[in-house]
Amino acid sequence: MPADDELRALLDRDAIRDLARRYAHHVWQNDLEALVALFAEDGEMDPGTRPPIRGHAALTEGFREMIGGAARFLPFVQQHVVDVAGDRATGTCYVDLRAEVERKSMIGAGWYDDRYVRTPAGWRFASRKIVLGFFVPLADGWVK
Amino acid sequence: MPADDELRALLDRDAIRDLARRYAHHVWQNDLEALVALFAEDGEMDPGTRPPIRGHAALTEGFREMIGGAARFLPFVQQHVVDVAGDRATGTCYVDLRAEVERKSMIGAGWYDDRYVRTPAGWRFASRKIVLGFFVPLADGWVK
Amino acid sequence: MPADDELRALLDRDAIRDLARRYAHHVWQNDLEALVALFAEDGEMDPGTRPPIRGHAALTEGFREMIGGAARFLPFVQQHVVDVAGDRATGTCYVDLRAEVERKSMIGAGWYDDRYVRTPAGWRFASRKIVLGFFVPLADGWVK
Repeated sequence: MPADDELRALLDRDAIRDLARRYAHHVWQNDLEALVALFAEDGEMDPGTRPPIRGHAALTEGFREMIGGAARFLPFVQQHVVDVAGDRATGTCYVDLRAEVERKSMIGAGWYDDRYVRTPAGWRFASRKIVLGFFVPLADGWVK
Repeated sequence: MPADDELRALLDRDAIRDLARRYAHHVWQNDLEALVALFAEDGEMDPGTRPPIRGHAALTEGFREMIGGAARFLPFVQQHVVDVAGDRATGTCYVDLRAEVERKSMIGAGWYDDRYVRTPAGWRFASRKIVLGFFVPLADGWVK
Repeated sequence: MPADDELRALLDRDAIRDLARRYAHHVWQNDLEALVALFAEDGEMDPGTRPPIRGHAALTEGFREMIGGAARFLPFVQQHVVDVAGDRATGTCYVDLRAEVERKSMIGAGWYDDRYVRTPAGWRFASRKIVLGFFVPLADGWVK
């Protein structure tokens, strides 16, 4: 029989990976309410392009401004490395991005630096910080 | 000890995600027999470009027409969100697509709306419906 | 209660998939020491472009030559099909590649033919062989 803690850790990692899968799913489907619900009550998003956004009310407003407008964001979740330590965890989750911004076909790539927390309702994002290596019009490529 | 039903659900989700992984694998390798075997006997594929195809015999013929010819399809499976309810499950499985069609390098993106069923032989596709947001020559980009 | 061997196999597959995730992570972050540590002591890498490289010392030197220089490689791990047989396993792990080579934005796609081995320290790569279907400047596309 596998040890209990091995199985518990496996369940934890799957639940944490599901946060990243559903994050991308909700961005594609533009479901901002479901997106915000993936964060802890005091969870934080750091988009890099503006100061970090903290808490459900601010996240709802921030996501509406960032992805609720005319631009469309179509993220693909890539390799997601997760390390669990009790009721906290950290992860690096790569992202391959398509987007439509100002009538341009965009391609991007980078990763999220994530922290996760176990809450009574399950694992949630404690914080996400996106680090984009490039985000450019497809036709231009990313090497300058 | 994690609860039995948590572990059973985890095994179910992994088996279901494996259907999508192997689907893409068999498309890449053009193994149509193995591809069809991922569907239930009365499983259905809805390619969007033609009426839904139902049952192993029709699927074999349909996949031969769609992907057994000169065009090559190179799908990459992305985030796969799965919800299990007993012996049935639903899922949304994103896809990033490369293809070679009429000597053009194509790029596409979208998702599969999936239903799965537990059979005596394991989980199988009950139905797949592909929803492509774009599928265009790489050089052209996808924003019109 | 799920059977012990089902749960053991699930843990094995997750550990094996983690090898591929961390391989890509370490390539992105250019952490060659961590990359080599994913291989068994006598593990082998077959890059296709040169003879296979075997053992930690040779791998360290080989990876330094291949990915430690001016070119940057940004791999995304895709569907990873794994079959475990006791303390050995095989897998096919698809890869979607971005790279910066000689100031060009490159895109590639293919897969790794993998063998894995269970060691006292956990699963490790016994061998990896990369099979690239294309690896071309983004602007050129891959169909010739």
